[in-house]
Amino acid sequence: MKLATIRSGNGTRAVRLEGEVLVDLGYADLRELFSRPDWQTVATHASAGTYPVGNADFAPVVPNPSKVVCVGHNYKNHIREMGRELPSYPTLFPKFAETLLGANDDIAKPAETDALDWEAELCIVVGKEVRRADEAAAVASIAGFTVMNDISVRDWQFRTVEWTQGKIWEATTPVGPFVTTPDEVGGVRPALEVRTLVDGEVRQHDNTGDLLFDPVSLVRYVSTMITLRPGDLIATGTPAGVGHARNPKTYLAGGATVVTEIEGLGACTNRIVA
Amino acid sequence: MKLATIRSGNGTRAVRLEGEVLVDLGYADLRELFSRPDWQTVATHASAGTYPVGNADFAPVVPNPSKVVCVGHNYKNHIREMGRELPSYPTLFPKFAETLLGANDDIAKPAETDALDWEAELCIVVGKEVRRADEAAAVASIAGFTVMNDISVRDWQFRTVEWTQGKIWEATTPVGPFVTTPDEVGGVRPALEVRTLVDGEVRQHDNTGDLLFDPVSLVRYVSTMITLRPGDLIATGTPAGVGHARNPKTYLAGGATVVTEIEGLGACTNRIVA
Repeated sequence: MKLATIRSGNGTRAVRLEGEVLVDLGYADLRELFSRPDWQTVATHASAGTYPVGNADFAPVVPNPSKVVCVGHNYKNHIREMGRELPSYPTLFPKFAETLLGANDDIAKPAETDALDWEAELCIVVGKEVRRADEAAAVASIAGFTVMNDISVRDWQFRTVEWTQGKIWEATTPVGPFVTTPDEVGGVRPALEVRTLVDGEVRQHDNTGDLLFDPVSLVRYVSTMITLRPGDLIATGTPAGVGHARNPKTYLAGGATVVTEIEGLGACTNRIVA
Repeated sequence: MKLATIRSGNGTRAVRLEGEVLVDLGYADLRELFSRPDWQTVATHASAGTYPVGNADFAPVVPNPSKVVCVGHNYKNHIREMGRELPSYPTLFPKFAETLLGANDDIAKPAETDALDWEAELCIVVGKEVRRADEAAAVASIAGFTVMNDISVRDWQFRTVEWTQGKIWEATTPVGPFVTTPDEVGGVRPALEVRTLVDGEVRQHDNTGDLLFDPVSLVRYVSTMITLRPGDLIATGTPAGVGHARNPKTYLAGGATVVTEIEGLGACTNRIVA
């Protein structure tokens, strides 16, 4: 099942993809839907109208998550090629709800930076409240997966030791277009091709099966600290190939189009507007 | 004017301190109040009932902020005594709404750590939406100040280069008891004594006039990245004297009482429960 939050004349709507149409599920967004304990049944059967998918204006899959937690240093190939040891613990940093964009929205480059960079990521969408999850609870709490382009403002990210100020810029981070349930992608530890293309050139290419800390272990780790709630997002880190690590460094400039895509989940396609 | 959010039989209530009583302002919490453009007038004149202050059960001053941004390395004396250069930029890290506690709540030490530490901080409470604030807009956006004890789980904080995982533990961080408007503390760059006492012994003692990045400059800096909204919190950093920097290191154990207090603002008084 593929679910989304789209923008309509009536604000946002939670929808299910059904062939060429999006079926209205009767809720304003996926956070509201996932807050129902029986959301899977509702999402399967509800039918409060349809919209043609070709015209869809995708909102962030969850426009207003209570928390967005992101992970750094998580692709084993990338860690090893950088000559680093595999870390014992995930590295965590935040984004905020206002940081998110829809899957096809333009990204307005902030005037304060010329170092806007891409990071394609598999993103976990939480569908059930969970704290100190064991394996079974973590598995049950994963509603599905989506694509995040963890857009990073590199010059601000590295002004200090803490990355936060490079990661929270308003309306910079596409997440979508769909939440795909685990049954469609081989379960809660999916092995999917992940790619970034900038103006059609492949910049990142790896497989989510290479994650050092897989989705289940990340839900367990983060929920040790804090309750995960329906609609919360955990971005699982990015593979090699970001612009900041290229020689020479290259960043996203006005007019560029960046595509971040994951096999079976879809793509975020975003134009940079300077 | 001193404002607070208290817990009552009806959920939470926004109140104004008036001598020995708390006057109900007709809103559920200070975020709701501050979302009114005329909140200062409402807060001054509203009177929807009273509660004796002696019995008050303080909630976090804002129980559900959209964002909590914290600052590290901000007291000049402390930076210099550590032999460091004064930084050019503030260091930022997050907390989440679920991380907050009321001013007098017990702090349950998570079983996963024996390195729970204190950090007394002047905390800015935002009263007006602002983005890319200039000086005047930043000044106008500050509703007032409160006390935060930026409780830190040191072993998790230093597992990786990013501090986030030591800072976001659920229900660990008292913030309150009151939001005190700037006119009561000498304006928006107040010079106030700040202290931490653990079981009656002074552990931190400095003055908020020593901040390298003052409240107005922090509002300007953070709002460059992202819109600050009514009820958002910015904790301005802690002075010397945290337990992790002592020799030997000392942390908060079950049964201890930690008081964080700022002249003119009041105190958070919290018992540690193991």
